[in-house]
Amino acid sequence: MDTADMGSFRGHALPGSFIFFTGAWWTAKCILKYACKKHKRTSYLGCKALFQRIEILEGIILICMALTGMTGEQFVPAGPHLVLYDHKEGQWVQLLSWHHFTMYFFFGLLGVMNILCFTISSLPTSLTKLMLSNAFFVEAFIFYNHTHGREMLDIFLHQLLVLVTFLAGLVAFVELFTRTNVIVELLRTSLVLLQGSWLWQIGFVLYPPSGGPAWDPNDHDNIMFLTICFCWHYALTFIVIGVIYAFVTWLVTSRLRRFCPSEVGLLKTADREQESEEEMRF
Amino acid sequence: MDTADMGSFRGHALPGSFIFFTGAWWTAKCILKYACKKHKRTSYLGCKALFQRIEILEGIILICMALTGMTGEQFVPAGPHLVLYDHKEGQWVQLLSWHHFTMYFFFGLLGVMNILCFTISSLPTSLTKLMLSNAFFVEAFIFYNHTHGREMLDIFLHQLLVLVTFLAGLVAFVELFTRTNVIVELLRTSLVLLQGSWLWQIGFVLYPPSGGPAWDPNDHDNIMFLTICFCWHYALTFIVIGVIYAFVTWLVTSRLRRFCPSEVGLLKTADREQESEEEMRF
Amino acid sequence: MDTADMGSFRGHALPGSFIFFTGAWWTAKCILKYACKKHKRTSYLGCKALFQRIEILEGIILICMALTGMTGEQFVPAGPHLVLYDHKEGQWVQLLSWHHFTMYFFFGLLGVMNILCFTISSLPTSLTKLMLSNAFFVEAFIFYNHTHGREMLDIFLHQLLVLVTFLAGLVAFVELFTRTNVIVELLRTSLVLLQGSWLWQIGFVLYPPSGGPAWDPNDHDNIMFLTICFCWHYALTFIVIGVIYAFVTWLVTSRLRRFCPSEVGLLKTADREQESEEEMRF
Amino acid sequence: MDTADMGSFRGHALPGSFIFFTGAWWTAKCILKYACKKHKRTSYLGCKALFQRIEILEGIILICMALTGMTGEQFVPAGPHLVLYDHKEGQWVQLLSWHHFTMYFFFGLLGVMNILCFTISSLPTSLTKLMLSNAFFVEAFIFYNHTHGREMLDIFLHQLLVLVTFLAGLVAFVELFTRTNVIVELLRTSLVLLQGSWLWQIGFVLYPPSGGPAWDPNDHDNIMFLTICFCWHYALTFIVIGVIYAFVTWLVTSRLRRFCPSEVGLLKTADREQESEEEMRF
Repeated sequence: MDTADMGSFRGHALPGSFIFFTGAWWTAKCILKYACKKHKRTSYLGCKALFQRIEILEGIILICMALTGMTGEQFVPAGPHLVLYDHKEGQWVQLLSWHHFTMYFFFGLLGVMNILCFTISSLPTSLTKLMLSNAFFVEAFIFYNHTHGREMLDIFLHQLLVLVTFLAGLVAFVELFTRTNVIVELLRTSLVLLQGSWLWQIGFVLYPPSGGPAWDPNDHDNIMFLTICFCWHYALTFIVIGVIYAFVTWLVTSRLRRFCPSEVGLLKTADREQESEEEMRF
Repeated sequence: MDTADMGSFRGHALPGSFIFFTGAWWTAKCILKYACKKHKRTSYLGCKALFQRIEILEGIILICMALTGMTGEQFVPAGPHLVLYDHKEGQWVQLLSWHHFTMYFFFGLLGVMNILCFTISSLPTSLTKLMLSNAFFVEAFIFYNHTHGREMLDIFLHQLLVLVTFLAGLVAFVELFTRTNVIVELLRTSLVLLQGSWLWQIGFVLYPPSGGPAWDPNDHDNIMFLTICFCWHYALTFIVIGVIYAFVTWLVTSRLRRFCPSEVGLLKTADREQESEEEMRF
Repeated sequence: MDTADMGSFRGHALPGSFIFFTGAWWTAKCILKYACKKHKRTSYLGCKALFQRIEILEGIILICMALTGMTGEQFVPAGPHLVLYDHKEGQWVQLLSWHHFTMYFFFGLLGVMNILCFTISSLPTSLTKLMLSNAFFVEAFIFYNHTHGREMLDIFLHQLLVLVTFLAGLVAFVELFTRTNVIVELLRTSLVLLQGSWLWQIGFVLYPPSGGPAWDPNDHDNIMFLTICFCWHYALTFIVIGVIYAFVTWLVTSRLRRFCPSEVGLLKTADREQESEEEMRF
Repeated sequence: MDTADMGSFRGHALPGSFIFFTGAWWTAKCILKYACKKHKRTSYLGCKALFQRIEILEGIILICMALTGMTGEQFVPAGPHLVLYDHKEGQWVQLLSWHHFTMYFFFGLLGVMNILCFTISSLPTSLTKLMLSNAFFVEAFIFYNHTHGREMLDIFLHQLLVLVTFLAGLVAFVELFTRTNVIVELLRTSLVLLQGSWLWQIGFVLYPPSGGPAWDPNDHDNIMFLTICFCWHYALTFIVIGVIYAFVTWLVTSRLRRFCPSEVGLLKTADREQESEEEMRF
């Protein structure tokens, strides 16, 4: 049963779902932080301790997911079982699985760094941003060298994946140099969401779940359709982010109003003016 | 009557004119803002409310234009009529029209975001910059994958269009990170103007309105001429911007002098010193 | 007598010399400004008015040089004499001359902008930086499309020219966003110097002034030599900049000491501390 | 005895070791500076003078290493012995050695600049950053033009070297524009470490020290393995940096505690709050 094998629909849909939900979670976290900062005088200190715990929890989850992925890649029946080179046959064993293994490993490193940075106070927290950027760059680099000798359609699909992964890494890298900016963070999460949903699309095209034949890999029209399909996926991520934004804002506003309605009302006008100035600066 | 079809002179000249006028309008707006900021002590508050209304109006116009373009692409006689895949023939329907449809859709999203950001005060206004940058990047991406299997001259013309669209997106993206800088905004609008006038040039080359034969698509000399022609178009945009600058500055100065001549005179020297300091910082 | 024709040794050495001397002059000006700023309390106001006049003079010289280049390209015996298209023969006339004409034109625009920005006080001075960056980008763009159908060695030589021109434009563009930084300005002038000396090298390789045969255009060893030759030219520009730096610093120090020795001595310690703080910030 | 010849295992392992140790030293220095800044009120002034002397010493060592490399490349038995062109045979002499010679020369220039900038106080210290960035860019440029007409595997190995060298130069260039940021400096040193260890890998692949046959240069599987091998090398540099970080931090903390335990204890809480604010800004 090669259900977790990358060469199948499920092998693309599973990591795609994981990445999509990670992206959705990062979007929610980033909007939550933004909303908390707006109301900072009332509840910022409590928020800060909470976010620290959330980051550590996130690190643990990331490590678990990475370990699951790494063992899955190694010990499925068709996997390499930790053997890198077959000396008898004189050839490398299952290099594609080792490629995925390496990607998961770097996301595991990101999890480790998350835990270290938020428990050891002397480490700068921007190290997690650097590791995130590195994990994306490594993923883009590996996918770029992943499709030697395949068909045109397959290469095109993976090139778009490389593009979106590289851009996500680039935005995470740019975040190292800017002060916290909700717009840039949302741009990064939108690219993560796009990456997840595009993995689904790759599964649909190369291994149709309906059991029908795969798409003609040498038809130029397929590539021209997938070009706009990619854009529609991107438009979809905006809608997902919009829904998350509306939900989180409603949650924060209603909860805060219930607990301390008068104080929020008083602070509102003062806050708004300060914010509008901040917005001018962006 | 395929008058709005992209495969004709009018099909290139119409969107070209729209883009050119949008660019001219953005240039005027940006110079107007710059001029208003200079005289801010006298009339800045009034200006701010005015600009907010202008942005909302701009959003509505953008949405209308995008809807017109989208319905036009779909329902011209040769259009796809909202059909994406022809199951009988087993092929995609009119993918080039769907390409243009997708581009218009992203400019429509920009319009929606314009309205949302300037009516809901909790949204940061830089979201419109992000959407603008995205709309240009999507347009560049689609044009890049637009010319599979065409002639050398056709590809070269569209590559230059991709170049200028990509650069416009890049400049809009850079604006996210810098404080408002009139030079960078004018650079972006100059690229939008160039994009509009270059669409006219494409129409002239591929579908000569005089009815004569199209240019020889495999003549290297044509490409070498279009290289410098592109530069001349760019020089033209500087002249257009210079004329708009002179006109707007004259308008602002003369109107302000009529209403409150003494006050402006008093403020002038104090303002100028402050400005010169700001200029030093650029 | 086609002595100013680009297809000759002199046709490369002449513009090369002009660009080299322009680069040397910009280096001297930039170091002079840096040295003046250090002694700003004693003589900055006088310097500022002086620099303004220098910029206007520079603009006039640039326009003269551009006009000379443009008329030279047009009216040499083998030139196009302002004819763009030969309707009889049905072909373009001397497109390479028109290429050079367009490059000169953009440097002429830079001169015009220099004069406008330093006479009309309402224009931001960073417009000259933008025009400089544009002039370099246009030059790189034209050179990139300049060598269709030539030999490997010729293309390689011009590609390196495109590289250095593009980098000069990029650095000038980056200067728009940073506060005045002597290091970045020197980097730009070093690239201009390199461009000038590389034009000499191109002349030597393609049209040996000794009258001997041109280099073998298909020998890989020639390309591998020119690779390191390019680096040596770059090292040379550092030495040129070092010599100019030493000369200008000696000039400023000795002249200032002669006029107001005691005052400079008093300010020196206070200045140095402030400078060292500024240096920390870079 | 061509032991220092680049066309051998030792010829790649020797410079690889040098670069690796330079990277390790820069990592240690950068973490030491970061740790010293944290305790700046107690010992910053002493540190500053110390670091100045260290930089000068580093410059001297760099010059010695560069001179060694340059003479080594020239005067090994198979070297060019300062002859560039063999007029008898009409061909270039040992251009690959001249390539390495040029690279060493630019690292020597970096050493000279290090000494000049830290002895002459009027030179801005960021000049060393610029020279470092230039040295890396020149190295990347030369390696890029180094492998004309070689096998696919050889080219791929050197392309990765170009990639990592170019990135190191880019990060050093970015450092010119940001205020001192420990994360970015560590990123640069990690790339230098990677460059050193990758030179070892190149030696292993092309000239196996076991004396066995070289790897099959046209096997796609070898390239796919080296892709992930490159990532593992990168993961290794993180571990090296982590170990150096732990060691240096332990050293600084224990030494400072021994000398002035009470004062450090008092400052600690005040420091930490300030730091956490600074970290927020990244």
